Amino acid sequence: LTKNLLEDVKKIFKTTSGTPFLIPTTGTGAWESALTNTLSPGDRTVSFLIGQFSLLWIDQQQRLKFNVDVVESDWGAGADLDALASKIAEDTAHTIKAVCIVHNETATGVTNNLATVRKILDHYQHPALFLVDGVSSICALDFRMDEWGIDVALTGSQKALSLPTGMGIVCASPKALEASKTATSVRVFFDWNDYLKFYKLGSYWPYTPSIQLLYGLRAALDLLFEEGLDNVIARHTRLAKATRLAVDAWGLKNCTQKEEWFSDTVTAVIVPSYIDSAEIVRRAWKRYNLSLGLGLNKVAGKVFRIGHLGNLNELQLLGCLAGVEMVLKDVGYPVTLGSGVAAASAFLQNTTPLIPSRI
Amino acid sequence: LTKNLLEDVKKIFKTTSGTPFLIPTTGTGAWESALTNTLSPGDRTVSFLIGQFSLLWIDQQQRLKFNVDVVESDWGAGADLDALASKIAEDTAHTIKAVCIVHNETATGVTNNLATVRKILDHYQHPALFLVDGVSSICALDFRMDEWGIDVALTGSQKALSLPTGMGIVCASPKALEASKTATSVRVFFDWNDYLKFYKLGSYWPYTPSIQLLYGLRAALDLLFEEGLDNVIARHTRLAKATRLAVDAWGLKNCTQKEEWFSDTVTAVIVPSYIDSAEIVRRAWKRYNLSLGLGLNKVAGKVFRIGHLGNLNELQLLGCLAGVEMVLKDVGYPVTLGSGVAAASAFLQNTTPLIPSRI
Amino acid sequence: LTKNLLEDVKKIFKTTSGTPFLIPTTGTGAWESALTNTLSPGDRTVSFLIGQFSLLWIDQQQRLKFNVDVVESDWGAGADLDALASKIAEDTAHTIKAVCIVHNETATGVTNNLATVRKILDHYQHPALFLVDGVSSICALDFRMDEWGIDVALTGSQKALSLPTGMGIVCASPKALEASKTATSVRVFFDWNDYLKFYKLGSYWPYTPSIQLLYGLRAALDLLFEEGLDNVIARHTRLAKATRLAVDAWGLKNCTQKEEWFSDTVTAVIVPSYIDSAEIVRRAWKRYNLSLGLGLNKVAGKVFRIGHLGNLNELQLLGCLAGVEMVLKDVGYPVTLGSGVAAASAFLQNTTPLIPSRI
Amino acid sequence: LTKNLLEDVKKIFKTTSGTPFLIPTTGTGAWESALTNTLSPGDRTVSFLIGQFSLLWIDQQQRLKFNVDVVESDWGAGADLDALASKIAEDTAHTIKAVCIVHNETATGVTNNLATVRKILDHYQHPALFLVDGVSSICALDFRMDEWGIDVALTGSQKALSLPTGMGIVCASPKALEASKTATSVRVFFDWNDYLKFYKLGSYWPYTPSIQLLYGLRAALDLLFEEGLDNVIARHTRLAKATRLAVDAWGLKNCTQKEEWFSDTVTAVIVPSYIDSAEIVRRAWKRYNLSLGLGLNKVAGKVFRIGHLGNLNELQLLGCLAGVEMVLKDVGYPVTLGSGVAAASAFLQNTTPLIPSRI
Repeated sequence: LTKNLLEDVKKIFKTTSGTPFLIPTTGTGAWESALTNTLSPGDRTVSFLIGQFSLLWIDQQQRLKFNVDVVESDWGAGADLDALASKIAEDTAHTIKAVCIVHNETATGVTNNLATVRKILDHYQHPALFLVDGVSSICALDFRMDEWGIDVALTGSQKALSLPTGMGIVCASPKALEASKTATSVRVFFDWNDYLKFYKLGSYWPYTPSIQLLYGLRAALDLLFEEGLDNVIARHTRLAKATRLAVDAWGLKNCTQKEEWFSDTVTAVIVPSYIDSAEIVRRAWKRYNLSLGLGLNKVAGKVFRIGHLGNLNELQLLGCLAGVEMVLKDVGYPVTLGSGVAAASAFLQNTTPLIPSRI
Repeated sequence: LTKNLLEDVKKIFKTTSGTPFLIPTTGTGAWESALTNTLSPGDRTVSFLIGQFSLLWIDQQQRLKFNVDVVESDWGAGADLDALASKIAEDTAHTIKAVCIVHNETATGVTNNLATVRKILDHYQHPALFLVDGVSSICALDFRMDEWGIDVALTGSQKALSLPTGMGIVCASPKALEASKTATSVRVFFDWNDYLKFYKLGSYWPYTPSIQLLYGLRAALDLLFEEGLDNVIARHTRLAKATRLAVDAWGLKNCTQKEEWFSDTVTAVIVPSYIDSAEIVRRAWKRYNLSLGLGLNKVAGKVFRIGHLGNLNELQLLGCLAGVEMVLKDVGYPVTLGSGVAAASAFLQNTTPLIPSRI
Repeated sequence: LTKNLLEDVKKIFKTTSGTPFLIPTTGTGAWESALTNTLSPGDRTVSFLIGQFSLLWIDQQQRLKFNVDVVESDWGAGADLDALASKIAEDTAHTIKAVCIVHNETATGVTNNLATVRKILDHYQHPALFLVDGVSSICALDFRMDEWGIDVALTGSQKALSLPTGMGIVCASPKALEASKTATSVRVFFDWNDYLKFYKLGSYWPYTPSIQLLYGLRAALDLLFEEGLDNVIARHTRLAKATRLAVDAWGLKNCTQKEEWFSDTVTAVIVPSYIDSAEIVRRAWKRYNLSLGLGLNKVAGKVFRIGHLGNLNELQLLGCLAGVEMVLKDVGYPVTLGSGVAAASAFLQNTTPLIPSRI
Repeated sequence: LTKNLLEDVKKIFKTTSGTPFLIPTTGTGAWESALTNTLSPGDRTVSFLIGQFSLLWIDQQQRLKFNVDVVESDWGAGADLDALASKIAEDTAHTIKAVCIVHNETATGVTNNLATVRKILDHYQHPALFLVDGVSSICALDFRMDEWGIDVALTGSQKALSLPTGMGIVCASPKALEASKTATSVRVFFDWNDYLKFYKLGSYWPYTPSIQLLYGLRAALDLLFEEGLDNVIARHTRLAKATRLAVDAWGLKNCTQKEEWFSDTVTAVIVPSYIDSAEIVRRAWKRYNLSLGLGLNKVAGKVFRIGHLGNLNELQLLGCLAGVEMVLKDVGYPVTLGSGVAAASAFLQNTTPLIPSRI
């Protein structure tokens, strides 16, 4: 079971050279695994602060005693890759040991361009490790570990795989594995070496894994491959586009500032200043059993979030959009009921789904 | 387990004097149980032909060798209770042994007025048994076995109880039990006497029941009582009204001819003559994974049906309506996308749900 | 799904020419289906009374108005096939329309020889239908519908298939289907013609089946075919032999009077007259959570039954036998603890299981 | 849900003053959580090496940079508490920061006396923290966190709670929480402070927990409290005693050297030198689907282990013992089949279970 899973799970990262680890932990633990196995206390990292989840990862990096070079952007903007380019250009001494980036910032609905990060590093022939949080992107957004030269990529079981929480999936490039040999960050539970030792022995596990989650991963991968990974990604693109059309029709603004950063897994919507977005989230849940995302931290009260990743189809999305419309009206925003649904369904009705329906 | 179930299941029929039977069978078997335990071959029954399910029950009555006095209506009309009144008035010799009526005709979305049936029988002091198919009504529509003097009422596990198929739930009045003592229809598997014998012994079952379905029934009743049976019925009323408003907004006609017959569990929609309703059902399933009901028999190709019973909430219904709109457009009907959703959600948004949301 | 199930389910009957029906009912309903589709009121049947389940079937035959020629044996003996031979020999007028026999009488642990029944019928070229209750035999004992010329065979989902109760599986030979065209027994729910009509249409179901049980049947058949039907039968033979060796070791007598009738799915054990077997069953359940079978009717208080069919392995059986030993001692029978387990495990340890273990 | 769980889970530790943490990790992670939150690199710990699991914990302590004072015993002996007493007596400077002990060493079936550890610390008024691995003891063996003055106790979801792997349950005394304020071990994922922050906010989780495991824990605790925690412990005592009697009857030796250390959750059995215990484990699984434990590390090939913790009853244990007997005979050990079962069942049959059976 594990042997096949380790082989098949590489496909969701689009890697053939990577080594995956199925760690009984959450996304936070997967972050810690990525960092402590490849870096040493005091190492300089460049990390982008663009929303709540990138903030938390930076906080972890600081608490793990790395020297974090924080590149901040507006919440709603993508990672400032020009700033990255400058820093990389200047760093001829190669003091930067890793570039850490969240592929998709769930708090603001921003997707960063990983290919550009790789281009910058290559342009300056900079050896920094390239560490990517793919929690809300992998299996939903276009992700190419090998092509983009990503050194550590990670996700969690409870996002696009639609499994229960409890498994952090981390994938390390050969360069990352090499780095782990000299990285001096203290680690035991998260230590890749223990895994690698048991991989060699063929018993695979340094401690008891959750058999249930392993069978779950098997089923999730089978469903994914049956639909086709590229079809799954195209489905996310299509549903996200429909969502954004609805937001436009409501006359509301996307928190994401430019089209190039639009996220196909979550849309953060800015509400007028006279409305508290938390009230929208509260009413949606209480009155319609609809689970929206709160605005977090800097955007608290200002945005609410519509998630559209994982096992979702057209009608579930349209039902959700209809619910948002009713809640917007409930809280006093002058929306025309049906307007968002109309815009979204006009798009959906005119575009062919790439996948055949399944029973 | 069984003892409590037998006590609690009476509540869904609103009866205190009835005796319930939980039979390992389907709705068709429940019909057979109702008829063979109370009637003898050759007995005259009055039965109303108003759609496919009433047709099938009449067919069963005929094959079981009863003398069926069929009262036919247009498909889309309710049972002709004036005709019933005449027959009952004329039948001073009491040759009519039973009035058999489908409470809610699923094929046409027609709900019959059971209280009126009782009034007619009472007015003429006619002793005919009153047998009611409540398959698509009980636990979803207002149903009062004792108040309306119903002698046998029946439903199935897979309808408003949202359980798997496999349990026919039949409830007999004291008068029906009395009739079973002299009814000569041949029956063994469906014989109430075998059940009654084991009820007395306290072992309850003449043959092995499905323990799984009994636990399922326990859970379904608990959910029902937690929400409140009257709240469940009000929820069905509310969602059905929203559905009918959407149909109006689309410019389509309800198959149900008069408001008094509108069904709160299913809406049958008439399509223009240039459209084949079966194509709507096929595309809804194939393209949007949306399960609509076909037009059956006389209304084949002419109507499609939207079911709205059981475990359903506002957003699921609105998602379904959005799907119907897209399919209507797909097949060439000039619908304004969003129009039905707008009409339905305007109603839903302005009316307070009677039940608090649950996690 | 249904199409493949109907094809695959024939394998458990070892028939290629039979037509299977998957009826939402219990074993009792399957009996009724077998009888009412092939016989007419007043038809003469020969039926063997050898225990509680054959008794119940005879009762059903009588209530369905057949003229039942009952051949009685001691409880513990097999069907009296000499008596059958005489009756068949004498019946040159072919008044006997069907021979009805329970393959394995669960109440006494008796397996009847179906091949001999066929030989008798063939020897006298008698056209009687051959109807077999295979509820506690099919998928566990050697059963050959085509080879033994069985006209209707039936089983239930909850026996050797280890599924929940709720599906009666009936298989009819071409001769039985032919008989159904003229059989005048009243039937609707159980009528094969309704099934056959929908088989032709390709929609398969005259009424809503339990999808859950159909998926269950799919899984049960897959498990069965993976182990191999013949291996499954050999496993039952092996575990039954071990059980009988334990009974011998305890110094108790098998209720089954001759070795030729020993059942490989259930062993009925006679207790000394000073012990009430019901007390054994009660204590086994209360003290050890062990479910034994009561002695029924004529053998009430005199026998208890050890079931060994379905999904059972060596250690589960030995645990059960150890439990029986403790209960026997509890109720005052002078058993040597461990003696039955020793006898059974000596046999099991020295014989090679035919099947590899599975995870 | 979480609020009630945090309250109820304290009962399994028998603490009222402790603070529990439900961490999405395994036992290994729970160890790391206990150590890094209370200790700083360089801190001196006393730790007992008595088998494979204590060895692994010591390895973790060393890799986390503590100064581990290892007290080694024979594998099969308990922790050397005399040595502890000497060290504590000598340590008037209080250089020992923590005593780390595995309550039940799973590899050798040894249970250590925690009350004595507390007595030693109290006798010398030594302030060392008292950290206990209760993975294979809590909910199965007598465990009293408050009474024995334990500072951190921990277990995992997959042991006596019979849940899937994935939740480390750690409970900290007020003194441990105090220590966490100054402990400088680097930690983020395992940091109690993050939990405590969210406890105060009433949102409870610093990152996404597994809802499924939380519901599972609710169900496991309900079952435990329904049986009664003390009854559960008594059941383990009773089944363990029966197991040891079987081992005696087979003429084999318990790996545990003295009765005071006998474990009531696992029995390690020494095989004669001419037998490879791994072969016993292999055959038990392959031939009888029986899962025994391998001898680990120093006792590899020399012992096999019978686990008897969690949801287990008499007959399951006896079936397992019968299986062991057959395997012993298979590998050439001259055991009398039935002898162990006889010894065990004689004990079980003569002692009254403390708990009523349940359905």
